[in-house]
Amino acid sequence: MVRYRRGMEILNRINRESYSALREELEDVAPDLARFVAEFAYGDIYSRGVLDLKTRELLTLAALTVLGAEDQLKSHVRGALNAGCSEEEIIEVMIQMAVYAGFPAAINGVLAAKEVFMEKK
Amino acid sequence: MVRYRRGMEILNRINRESYSALREELEDVAPDLARFVAEFAYGDIYSRGVLDLKTRELLTLAALTVLGAEDQLKSHVRGALNAGCSEEEIIEVMIQMAVYAGFPAAINGVLAAKEVFMEKK
Amino acid sequence: MVRYRRGMEILNRINRESYSALREELEDVAPDLARFVAEFAYGDIYSRGVLDLKTRELLTLAALTVLGAEDQLKSHVRGALNAGCSEEEIIEVMIQMAVYAGFPAAINGVLAAKEVFMEKK
Amino acid sequence: MVRYRRGMEILNRINRESYSALREELEDVAPDLARFVAEFAYGDIYSRGVLDLKTRELLTLAALTVLGAEDQLKSHVRGALNAGCSEEEIIEVMIQMAVYAGFPAAINGVLAAKEVFMEKK
Amino acid sequence: MVRYRRGMEILNRINRESYSALREELEDVAPDLARFVAEFAYGDIYSRGVLDLKTRELLTLAALTVLGAEDQLKSHVRGALNAGCSEEEIIEVMIQMAVYAGFPAAINGVLAAKEVFMEKK
Amino acid sequence: MVRYRRGMEILNRINRESYSALREELEDVAPDLARFVAEFAYGDIYSRGVLDLKTRELLTLAALTVLGAEDQLKSHVRGALNAGCSEEEIIEVMIQMAVYAGFPAAINGVLAAKEVFMEKK
Repeated sequence: MVRYRRGMEILNRINRESYSALREELEDVAPDLARFVAEFAYGDIYSRGVLDLKTRELLTLAALTVLGAEDQLKSHVRGALNAGCSEEEIIEVMIQMAVYAGFPAAINGVLAAKEVFMEKK
Repeated sequence: MVRYRRGMEILNRINRESYSALREELEDVAPDLARFVAEFAYGDIYSRGVLDLKTRELLTLAALTVLGAEDQLKSHVRGALNAGCSEEEIIEVMIQMAVYAGFPAAINGVLAAKEVFMEKK
Repeated sequence: MVRYRRGMEILNRINRESYSALREELEDVAPDLARFVAEFAYGDIYSRGVLDLKTRELLTLAALTVLGAEDQLKSHVRGALNAGCSEEEIIEVMIQMAVYAGFPAAINGVLAAKEVFMEKK
Repeated sequence: MVRYRRGMEILNRINRESYSALREELEDVAPDLARFVAEFAYGDIYSRGVLDLKTRELLTLAALTVLGAEDQLKSHVRGALNAGCSEEEIIEVMIQMAVYAGFPAAINGVLAAKEVFMEKK
Repeated sequence: MVRYRRGMEILNRINRESYSALREELEDVAPDLARFVAEFAYGDIYSRGVLDLKTRELLTLAALTVLGAEDQLKSHVRGALNAGCSEEEIIEVMIQMAVYAGFPAAINGVLAAKEVFMEKK
Repeated sequence: MVRYRRGMEILNRINRESYSALREELEDVAPDLARFVAEFAYGDIYSRGVLDLKTRELLTLAALTVLGAEDQLKSHVRGALNAGCSEEEIIEVMIQMAVYAGFPAAINGVLAAKEVFMEKK
């Protein structure tokens, strides 16, 4: 329970709505997978310190841009904003990914971020 | 020439030896590719500001861990150290990648970093 | 013709509708590609024995979850059900993929499976 | 400016509309990324000679089919047609990718190409 | 502690030596990553039932063949043998991956398995 | 048998030694996989016409550079040379891949090609 609570604390700060939505979607097919997100991803990993949450969210954006995981990318663009990243910093991550994963990944990353920025306006 | 010089300035600060080695290796087959690294990757991208070099190196480690690009990963572990990242921070990036790209990517990333740490000791 | 017939026999048992749909879609641009699916994928590979069809479908779900190939994943969720896999077993494959390809791949896999399960209800 | 102009010359010949659309989409979030496409991808790379534009477009189709980058793939199917590739040659690239990246990538590539072919008719 | 013990129980049955080697390698740089393997991968996931260990090992081979993660693949070929899979079944997984991830992935998977088979003889 | 013979004819022209080596390596674990390479990859695909062998080899280099499949890449660098591609053209493919798959893939591709070029000298 400690891991879950520790994870939920971080999730509530930076990704509350995305996580609620995920939990609801997974509820009737794979509720444990949602639990693992809270316990392992957030309770075990994001809570480790060493790197602050803002840096962790930027790293996650880099990873998801490389992987082309659009839905998770949008959810973490929201998370990054909530963790205190600016829109400019978020876009900068995607632009840098052009060097390592090519232009299609970078462009798709920027367009996903743009969609999130616009729904906030 | 401005882009090249701007790129070399950053490369000289954080990745001088790796870049010399790369330039030498590419010299007789693809010298332009080495030039593009200096001009585009460093002269156009790393020099943009918005994110500091330390953060940029951590993002690059995230990308290369996801991609499993071992040689480039080792070279950027050196770059990250030169940019002021601690060994702990570097390892932390790789551990976080377990969440997004799975354990094999994270483990291979940590072992690549370890090799670099050990050659420095 | 033997390979094609052998492939179609398996396809008719586990993936008849998906394959008809595919053949129709490819008919005017790449009919040979649909033929290769029947001849090579099913006639040469799935028909080899050693592993039963149920196991083969689970392996395919693992591969497609890692690759993030959503359309093919949905088609093979149907195939897996037709081959005798339970919904629980299918979901379990996706959850296991979190370990090897990360949470985004696993979550996207589960959501794709859920869509197929729901259209059957 | 030379690189930009050189890139735009090629873009105007083979991918004018896709590039305008991209530039517009990126304008308010990452205008530099659109500029890098013109300067680096087209001004530095496509303009190098050695391979003609037709061959370069086919190579790009191969890469994007392997990567599964659907939007960029469609844009380059248009580019390939404008560079003088036939529909048959384009489809042939995707079919060959079945050998190296598997059937899902090949099938998704063919279906993306088909969509572009049909909007032209 | 329950999760760790539950994970170690499975690891001791099917992958004891690989896990000891991993734990030792990670000890001085990322001991927590080794712990997460036992707790999360084995304690949370492999222990879930629904699929037996033999099937789980085959699924893991499929994933690692697609990902091209050679070291982990070899370790899980050993795990699969210990879980009761035959050499033939293991090879069959790799061959099937030619359909979904292409021939290079399948061939590299077979050659990795062959190395493990030969060190046992 | 027709497909096999048709495939072997092409293999004998452009990749004879690589294929012999592969067949020998796979002989005692997965001889059918070597047969599928001849029958399907070469007998069904490379023999289709529409694109000439030189273009097909360049496309394969693009795919393998993106995938990072080093051993297969080296083998196809040899194949490309045998099919009449120049060293310059081969390198040019890899450089172009920097745009779509990033610099690490392009650099690793160039270095693999260089190794093959040097063993010929």
